[in-house]
Amino acid sequence: MIRHTVAFTLKNQKKSMEGLDFFTALKKLASIPGVQKFECLKQISRKNKFDFGLSMEFDNATLYEEYTNHPTHVYFVETYWLTEVDDFLEIDYEPLT
Amino acid sequence: MIRHTVAFTLKNQKKSMEGLDFFTALKKLASIPGVQKFECLKQISRKNKFDFGLSMEFDNATLYEEYTNHPTHVYFVETYWLTEVDDFLEIDYEPLT
Repeated sequence: MIRHTVAFTLKNQKKSMEGLDFFTALKKLASIPGVQKFECLKQISRKNKFDFGLSMEFDNATLYEEYTNHPTHVYFVETYWLTEVDDFLEIDYEPLT
Repeated sequence: MIRHTVAFTLKNQKKSMEGLDFFTALKKLASIPGVQKFECLKQISRKNKFDFGLSMEFDNATLYEEYTNHPTHVYFVETYWLTEVDDFLEIDYEPLT
């Protein structure tokens, strides 16, 4: 299992929240083959600067790579992520054996 | 639901991994009342500097606060965390409604 997480802030949170386009588009990533346990999250700790989060799981690295290269993901990154996200941090986990 | 996560690096990873004391002590946090879905994780993204992760969930903020103040947690932080952890980042999530 690989858990892919991204903590992020938006350039214009009010606009992105009100318009709903960003989060509607974000949720479409859940339909990409291999994506499991897809979650849109609110970041609530005061100990970092991020406002939102995204979490999903893949069975293996191949499925994760196929997700990254999937047209739906590429389109989302180019159309929404690059224009509306201010800053982000990717953190990926595997179980510690 | 509140998901409390911490990504971290160790000052001396080899020593902390071989001795097992750190991770043995870390896993005892799972026994604190209110802690659910406790996970020790390996951080695998090359896009950040962290090597390990910790994730757990609480039903509400009161249980999270009780965990923070619990003697088992306080003892772990003072005895292991402050001496063996090099750097860390706390990221806490709630479902985005």
